[in-house]
Amino acid sequence: MATIESFVPILDLGGTFVFAISGAVAAVNRRLDIFGILVLAFVTGNVGGITRDVLIGAVPPAALVDTRYLLVSILAGIITFFWYAGVDRLRTPVLLFDAAGLAFFAVAGTQKAIEFGLGPVPSALLGMLSGIGGGMTRDVLLSEIPQVLRSDFYAVAALAGALIVVIGDGLGLPYSVSALVGGILCFGLRFMAIRHGWHLPLAHHSARQRAAVDGLNQNKTTREGN
Amino acid sequence: MATIESFVPILDLGGTFVFAISGAVAAVNRRLDIFGILVLAFVTGNVGGITRDVLIGAVPPAALVDTRYLLVSILAGIITFFWYAGVDRLRTPVLLFDAAGLAFFAVAGTQKAIEFGLGPVPSALLGMLSGIGGGMTRDVLLSEIPQVLRSDFYAVAALAGALIVVIGDGLGLPYSVSALVGGILCFGLRFMAIRHGWHLPLAHHSARQRAAVDGLNQNKTTREGN
Amino acid sequence: MATIESFVPILDLGGTFVFAISGAVAAVNRRLDIFGILVLAFVTGNVGGITRDVLIGAVPPAALVDTRYLLVSILAGIITFFWYAGVDRLRTPVLLFDAAGLAFFAVAGTQKAIEFGLGPVPSALLGMLSGIGGGMTRDVLLSEIPQVLRSDFYAVAALAGALIVVIGDGLGLPYSVSALVGGILCFGLRFMAIRHGWHLPLAHHSARQRAAVDGLNQNKTTREGN
Repeated sequence: MATIESFVPILDLGGTFVFAISGAVAAVNRRLDIFGILVLAFVTGNVGGITRDVLIGAVPPAALVDTRYLLVSILAGIITFFWYAGVDRLRTPVLLFDAAGLAFFAVAGTQKAIEFGLGPVPSALLGMLSGIGGGMTRDVLLSEIPQVLRSDFYAVAALAGALIVVIGDGLGLPYSVSALVGGILCFGLRFMAIRHGWHLPLAHHSARQRAAVDGLNQNKTTREGN
Repeated sequence: MATIESFVPILDLGGTFVFAISGAVAAVNRRLDIFGILVLAFVTGNVGGITRDVLIGAVPPAALVDTRYLLVSILAGIITFFWYAGVDRLRTPVLLFDAAGLAFFAVAGTQKAIEFGLGPVPSALLGMLSGIGGGMTRDVLLSEIPQVLRSDFYAVAALAGALIVVIGDGLGLPYSVSALVGGILCFGLRFMAIRHGWHLPLAHHSARQRAAVDGLNQNKTTREGN
Repeated sequence: MATIESFVPILDLGGTFVFAISGAVAAVNRRLDIFGILVLAFVTGNVGGITRDVLIGAVPPAALVDTRYLLVSILAGIITFFWYAGVDRLRTPVLLFDAAGLAFFAVAGTQKAIEFGLGPVPSALLGMLSGIGGGMTRDVLLSEIPQVLRSDFYAVAALAGALIVVIGDGLGLPYSVSALVGGILCFGLRFMAIRHGWHLPLAHHSARQRAAVDGLNQNKTTREGN
């Protein structure tokens, strides 16, 4: 299965690149300066994997040691800085690349955790974290609630791909097979969710909704404490 | 003192559970979807301990490797999701369980740091961090200033319990004794703070208050940079 | 070069102190209680170095093990708590000390990463992170976008100092020489940026600016998802 393995670095750096683009676009939208744009690009492209590496003890993290991750992130930041209008118009292709990046990160992150001796459940969790951690940190730095916590099938798609890798490992299948199946499942779920607007259910909380009508401003003031 | 030690896993998982409930309730209040609720439950129940483990070099962290922490967190999230109104009505019992969870986390976190060879001061700090780190991360993910930084005796209670364990260790007392005393002190302080509305002092900053009267909106715009 | 090395602990603890002052002042401005003020002081003074230490595998981090960092941070918090008006009036000297702290942290952080075997690029990045990480975490805990991502030459000055250390190491110069040159460069850039109001460029994003005029409130609602 040499064909798949020769694609791995391309997919990995490609995933970093599209994640970094999404970070840079968010930074431009919030009017950060060029340094802020580069930081958001690097953070979004790499913090998921860095956090995974810290948690499994793989320090210093690969994304710091291998300079290509930095270069790819800077490239994404610079392209967005000089060509924001163009990048913004490419929203749909970027979403598809982002789905591909998510699929790759989830699958490869799971495999790395397995290789470091973690069990199936933590490995799948860390695979998912590799995929969603960068975007979560991007949103926290922009003082927003992470989108992945309030929207569609993003994390679920990553988790599904990660679980396939874990199950494949348990069944003794070669990594290239389970990675391919897991990656396609993750990408496919994400693609369908974008196309059909799938989203996850919210909890009913009628008591609070009533309270909200009664005294929204008061509640808000109390909660936000300002 | 086998009686105490046989309670330890129950208290530990019980503490995780009540912390996870508080994360899930906060997630429902901010209208996160079911995945966001489960993430907030897990984060609030476990990130304090995970951060402590990363800082003392105990990787992969126990909360990732031992699947029961995940299961207990998911259980708390699902209960909150389907039964939010009921959980919300149980506010007072949840506060008491939360105080118990805090006491256990502070005491056990301190002991773990001591066992990893840290000195008394960092051990007490890490014990406190074990107790408050999950709730702080919950609030950061919800884009709020952590409650523990602006309210009553929460962290101080955790620190008091942690200090008892450190002092007990210095005096050569058995862990079960100092853990019991430290845990009761932490729980008691927290209970009294809830019951009597104890809170910590704020700084006087009359210069700023004057400025605030002069130009509040202007200041706010500048500070928040939007 | 014993003269320089005997200054190192003073500069290091001095840098921690001025960073801690900036955290404590921000905490008072947001009306945190005394515990919140102490936490913000410690976080701002030490999280940059702690994060660097976690990423290079130097756990437990020096700022936890060596109690002087805690004591200096608490001292800064208490001074600010009792003497806020005075500290606030010392804004310009504090900015200069802050520039000195940044210079020292960037240089010493880079050197520590080199000593742990990291290559030149990650070492320079980690040196910069040592300098800016504390302030970034301070702002995240206060639910604000980190100032360093949207303002003047702060991070660039840190990076410039870090690069000098890396280049000096590559050329085989003694650390005391490159540290002195790098530190002076960082301090000088920061000083000039404060004095002359230097800042980094923003991206043009006319498409969005047009959209903003058309429907600002609508966009904002969507983006912030409330």
